[in-house]
Amino acid sequence: MEQSHKNVYAVIMAGGIGSRFWPISTQKYPKQFQDILGVGKSMIRQTYERLLPLIPSERIFVVTANEYLPLCAEHLPELPLENIIGEPSSRNTAACNLYIAHLLASRDSEAVLVVLPSDHLILKENLFVEKLQAGISFVEKENCLLTLGITPTRPDTGYGYIQYNTLNKPESNNEFFKVKTFTEKPNLDLAQSFIESGDFLWNAGIFLWTARAIIHAFEKYQPDMAEQFLECKIPEEKDEASRYNFPENCIVDIYPKLQKISVDHAILEKAENVFVLPADLGWSDLGTWTSIYENAEKNDQGNVCYPKNMVLGEGCTNSILRTTQAQKLIIADGLQDYIVIDTEKVLLILPKEKDQTIKDIVLKVKQLRRGDQYI
Amino acid sequence: MEQSHKNVYAVIMAGGIGSRFWPISTQKYPKQFQDILGVGKSMIRQTYERLLPLIPSERIFVVTANEYLPLCAEHLPELPLENIIGEPSSRNTAACNLYIAHLLASRDSEAVLVVLPSDHLILKENLFVEKLQAGISFVEKENCLLTLGITPTRPDTGYGYIQYNTLNKPESNNEFFKVKTFTEKPNLDLAQSFIESGDFLWNAGIFLWTARAIIHAFEKYQPDMAEQFLECKIPEEKDEASRYNFPENCIVDIYPKLQKISVDHAILEKAENVFVLPADLGWSDLGTWTSIYENAEKNDQGNVCYPKNMVLGEGCTNSILRTTQAQKLIIADGLQDYIVIDTEKVLLILPKEKDQTIKDIVLKVKQLRRGDQYI
Repeated sequence: MEQSHKNVYAVIMAGGIGSRFWPISTQKYPKQFQDILGVGKSMIRQTYERLLPLIPSERIFVVTANEYLPLCAEHLPELPLENIIGEPSSRNTAACNLYIAHLLASRDSEAVLVVLPSDHLILKENLFVEKLQAGISFVEKENCLLTLGITPTRPDTGYGYIQYNTLNKPESNNEFFKVKTFTEKPNLDLAQSFIESGDFLWNAGIFLWTARAIIHAFEKYQPDMAEQFLECKIPEEKDEASRYNFPENCIVDIYPKLQKISVDHAILEKAENVFVLPADLGWSDLGTWTSIYENAEKNDQGNVCYPKNMVLGEGCTNSILRTTQAQKLIIADGLQDYIVIDTEKVLLILPKEKDQTIKDIVLKVKQLRRGDQYI
Repeated sequence: MEQSHKNVYAVIMAGGIGSRFWPISTQKYPKQFQDILGVGKSMIRQTYERLLPLIPSERIFVVTANEYLPLCAEHLPELPLENIIGEPSSRNTAACNLYIAHLLASRDSEAVLVVLPSDHLILKENLFVEKLQAGISFVEKENCLLTLGITPTRPDTGYGYIQYNTLNKPESNNEFFKVKTFTEKPNLDLAQSFIESGDFLWNAGIFLWTARAIIHAFEKYQPDMAEQFLECKIPEEKDEASRYNFPENCIVDIYPKLQKISVDHAILEKAENVFVLPADLGWSDLGTWTSIYENAEKNDQGNVCYPKNMVLGEGCTNSILRTTQAQKLIIADGLQDYIVIDTEKVLLILPKEKDQTIKDIVLKVKQLRRGDQYI
């Protein structure tokens, strides 16, 4: 396996701040570095370990904000430090993908990239590896852009949807489907009709492509961005040590000028060679406390308690009761469908159905006197 | 005023552990040393200051458990240290009252004692002083036992009730009434009938008597206890320095043998010279979180928030939202009639109507592994 994938690189995107998981997730210590599911490992660590059967540490890269470089190194000590790439500023996923594609292309012109978020849940890890293997072979052969698609189980309005074409398959495969449309976060009616039509999948944000194919797609669909990056191209005569990196000053200069746009909007919605590989991985983007609740281990009352032995919640049902404080005891009674999160600086008690309002709460807290200390 | 009351001593009873206010009130730092109402002063400090218009510091005594001696000294730094009396063990209020009466009688044979709990609320502080003045004169003249009675405003089943005799007044007073019966914590029907009858008052646990009268009452109604204490009588030839104190070894020896009984049961229910002085002082024993709630300052949503500026509780009503942690922010939504208490080691979230179960919760927590650290 190893030998046949020697050009394959994983790129873990770890730049988000996870404000929907405040107060556990904070600007200084965001979701991907937290054990948000209470399984004993941070999300980024789980993501990393999930890749190891297919891709060795030296070909796993992380792209993150500069301020999270130390956290990445701490959570993934096996990674060579030069594999942890800091973005000078946050410019959404298009810039980040173009940056890493150039970086890896300059290292390996045959590079195949598996790009994936650092903070998603995948329960079927073996299937995940199998699908990646199939996908890698496919993108190498077809020179296309591939995304993994999840069969939707409910009309979730928080996800992106992929409409795929069951008729127009490439030759010699019966797994990969041409993508017709992408739709980000539809309203409930639309989501419902997507589910009923049967030819929609959730966009898991796990992409496979060759560095060559994605750079080419940028040249075609985002020529301005492609042009801006050319300024950073390493001259051929550069020495071995620097050949994996763009000159630092150059990236610092061009990054702030780049358009803030997602790779979905910038490329995938426009390109004609986009395919989807259906892959029911037991996936969740774990985007809300409610989805954490659904995917975490529950006790007999349906409560998710962390640490398990520190919560007495006998009169509570279907709630998350959680403290980050060592040896702190939670005693709760009468809460139904609640989120209770206790940290050193914040106690949040919120009905689960209001978990989408956490971003608003964070904004309100920011406006408090000395509010920044809580974010 | 001062001159005319030179034999008057206040005795603040401060030995309780206030487990109904757990987790704010703990064994190490009980309710009386806490600012349980959020007014900026501990309960014992409020009690002390309330007495000062009538009784100077050098004649204010505190009786408490040995382990709380340092806390008493810390909260009442104006008190001479020798006025803070430690009980070798907790033997309920009869033992404590007999002890302090002997102690003060051996200092001042004409001593008049105002005995009162350290942790009650009295809103009408001027009226309180007036009633004490009247009461002091009365017990000096009549050589009787006097308790202050509060006109009941509801059939509270947590209080003691005093039935008084409106016909059988002592001569030359129209304020003091002979007590007919004491009833501790009646059931709701009985409490209701007490209220309707109109000749019942709540027993506020504020007692006035001469040292001589209470010692005499013990000799008559608790001869065994009186006898046990005689072993501690200071011989006449003792020097000046020791005359206020019983020999320490003696108290340590007899205390554990004393009957555990309240002064109400031991004496007041039996004695024939017990009077009550009705005194509507804006009093509460602050015995439950609900009574704290009722007596504390509320915001527009009817929430009691401490610290005020650290709570965002917009979707909450009629709740207590409180943290003891400096700079900690509470954000709560959707709670109606709840008690939320956050301390360093415990987070308690409980419907107000269940505040009587806190003692049971404390017992349950004690049984946890290393549970003692939370109590």
